[in-house]
Amino acid sequence: MTHTELTERTEALGTDDLRSIVQSAHPADAAAALDDLEPREVRDLLTELDLPRRAVVFGYLRPELQVALARLFERRQLAELITEMDADDRADVFNKLSPDQQSALLPGLAHAERENIRRLAGYAEGTAGAIMTSDYATLSPGLSAQAAIDVLRREALDKETIYRAYVLDDDRRLIGVVRLSDLILAPADTPVEELMDRNPVTVALSDHQEDVAQTIARYDILAVPVIDEAGRLVGIVTHDDALDALQEEATEDFHKLGTVARLPGSVRDASIATLYQKRVFWLALLVFGNLFSGAGIAYFEDTISAHVALVFFLPLLIGSSGNAGAQAATLMVRALATGDVRMRDWGRLLGREVVVALALGATMALAVSLIGIFRGGPEVALVVACTMVLVVIVGSLIGMSLPFLLHWFNRDPATASAPLVTTIADAVGVVIYFAIATAILF
Amino acid sequence: MTHTELTERTEALGTDDLRSIVQSAHPADAAAALDDLEPREVRDLLTELDLPRRAVVFGYLRPELQVALARLFERRQLAELITEMDADDRADVFNKLSPDQQSALLPGLAHAERENIRRLAGYAEGTAGAIMTSDYATLSPGLSAQAAIDVLRREALDKETIYRAYVLDDDRRLIGVVRLSDLILAPADTPVEELMDRNPVTVALSDHQEDVAQTIARYDILAVPVIDEAGRLVGIVTHDDALDALQEEATEDFHKLGTVARLPGSVRDASIATLYQKRVFWLALLVFGNLFSGAGIAYFEDTISAHVALVFFLPLLIGSSGNAGAQAATLMVRALATGDVRMRDWGRLLGREVVVALALGATMALAVSLIGIFRGGPEVALVVACTMVLVVIVGSLIGMSLPFLLHWFNRDPATASAPLVTTIADAVGVVIYFAIATAILF
Repeated sequence: MTHTELTERTEALGTDDLRSIVQSAHPADAAAALDDLEPREVRDLLTELDLPRRAVVFGYLRPELQVALARLFERRQLAELITEMDADDRADVFNKLSPDQQSALLPGLAHAERENIRRLAGYAEGTAGAIMTSDYATLSPGLSAQAAIDVLRREALDKETIYRAYVLDDDRRLIGVVRLSDLILAPADTPVEELMDRNPVTVALSDHQEDVAQTIARYDILAVPVIDEAGRLVGIVTHDDALDALQEEATEDFHKLGTVARLPGSVRDASIATLYQKRVFWLALLVFGNLFSGAGIAYFEDTISAHVALVFFLPLLIGSSGNAGAQAATLMVRALATGDVRMRDWGRLLGREVVVALALGATMALAVSLIGIFRGGPEVALVVACTMVLVVIVGSLIGMSLPFLLHWFNRDPATASAPLVTTIADAVGVVIYFAIATAILF
Repeated sequence: MTHTELTERTEALGTDDLRSIVQSAHPADAAAALDDLEPREVRDLLTELDLPRRAVVFGYLRPELQVALARLFERRQLAELITEMDADDRADVFNKLSPDQQSALLPGLAHAERENIRRLAGYAEGTAGAIMTSDYATLSPGLSAQAAIDVLRREALDKETIYRAYVLDDDRRLIGVVRLSDLILAPADTPVEELMDRNPVTVALSDHQEDVAQTIARYDILAVPVIDEAGRLVGIVTHDDALDALQEEATEDFHKLGTVARLPGSVRDASIATLYQKRVFWLALLVFGNLFSGAGIAYFEDTISAHVALVFFLPLLIGSSGNAGAQAATLMVRALATGDVRMRDWGRLLGREVVVALALGATMALAVSLIGIFRGGPEVALVVACTMVLVVIVGSLIGMSLPFLLHWFNRDPATASAPLVTTIADAVGVVIYFAIATAILF
């Protein structure tokens, strides 16, 4: 039985099966099985577990459920649980609690955990500081390989982070990184400083989490050390947190492309008020954009009255302009986000886009001019065909340039969403269409 | 100097600086520095490197450049290089070569590499089989911890994959996974079978790469073993390949949302013909969708002739319907892709969407009815307000249901792109608008 099957099966489980999964399955599966229960039931099942397992399973629960549980646990129980968690998960949970819950919790924790939370919770969301952990092993450069392995045995226990140890000088400045595999493969008396990589990849505390994740992806490393301005090691970001960060950033970009503002948590748990707030801004803003299209139409009201048949082609023409623009914008937004395309590529890509758009526009013009002849005669067909070529080109150029312009002004290119591009292309398309119509038909 | 700075600086480098980066910087940075050069220059610089480094740097180059170089290297040189690469990178490069290049290359390789390539290159793109590697260490269950560490020392060398070893029975069936850290921490004579995890997370050969990556993310593991139908170990997928797969899938979903079909490589290197092909299908299809809007307008031509002012509000009303739909669709497409939302959530989310859309529609109706009074009097304002509420609700419900419907019929929910939803919402919006107008104004 694969783990996926296990997860699907938990959807229709009896209490005994559920209890056995919570007690002995992989903690991620245990957490998934608890996902649909009432917080009280989850609390009862968690309380049956020994503390280390309870902390691990709790760490895998979704944030909304963690917060609900924090409210249900007694203060002492919660402090115990939080103390047992990994440092970075602990800070994550702490950050999501209400100020009241936070100040109720802190006195119950030991000094070290309290300081640790304060430190990790203090960094701005979305930065390396906010996703780093303080669970890592450090060595001094003069240790022998054998002594270093003994230190790791004592310190790091069963943590995955044992695989890389960070070599610090007396001022805690990072001077190298050594792999467990190098320590094991080397003769026992080799000093650590001869085995370490002296030029490790690092990130700064304030680096954006997306850049941190891209760094880990780019260099294919397990974890990247985070250093402060003085070059001191303050934490590490591990590959699994990088993967989560990358997922989160992709979701944010997706939502931006759909003109939905940043949601604080899962879509599934979002309240009606939250969804309303996150969507109304762009909807209202785009209506004002549409007013320009309306104004364009009002300006050509005489042309329209004389040739009402022209309105038939309106959705088709401005729709194509917007769609071509949405395509071009999407390609550029994603390419800028992944680093596939950079600012200096703009000129070259613009040239290519003109040719692609011309080909697309010509194809579409051919199709609609046939409909034009049938519905309005050769003159209308000519108007429609000319308009199609022009609006597809203009729409595409707007769509591909907007992300670059936003990037140039240090804004997020993902703001160049399909609806925004469509709205702009619509307004421009209306003017082009009726201007051409007025010129040819009168 | 951080590595990011290094990368940015390479954009304006002299030949000596470039040579020193290629020879001694992190291979990812070396590859980035070579990125903008002509393939011939890249070949010359690579030829100066010793073979192991040349293979690593080559592995980091983008696919288009790898293929160009494969054409430039002599056959013997290329065989040497390919032999030196990691098994999974080797199969990737091989897959991208032309059939001619492939058959020219194969005779130059040793039997083992040839078989290995044939095996890895045989799996369908996008599956676990296609992204797995055969670089992993195996142990038999009866070995002692100390003997196991010695095996790993001899076999796995400096590979990251040394951190997990796979325990196989005599038929190569996977019976457990043991971590290097467990081997090190245990007394030297403990048998491997007492240290191993007997119920490891696994994936099947044909599992989709996105699911494999989600598995790695879900269980926070370094690598996941790939097994065949008989439970035999055939490869492992490592966390870095999972991260790449996840990026690739997100890009594909982005492009789908922008109605661009799957691009074979980077947007930057895509040819005009490729871009045309990948975009023309949806553009043309959506034009046919827009014909329904046009037909709707044609049907109400008398209403329009009598009240040309109605056309002013057309872009604004159908635009809002499409935009609300695009928002709802984007939220659902992403939530379905990340597993945040499942099929059975549809009913509940539909109910929530009605309330959210009602609130959004009412807000927008208030705004546009003011414009309506100003431009057409109270009756037009009433038409516009009623239409706005209705089209925002209908647009939202179409947008949120389409991804679920596609999912239900085993299609990719990402096909529910903003342009598609907009086109459908437009057509429905036109009919609603003019039907309400005809009812109220006549």
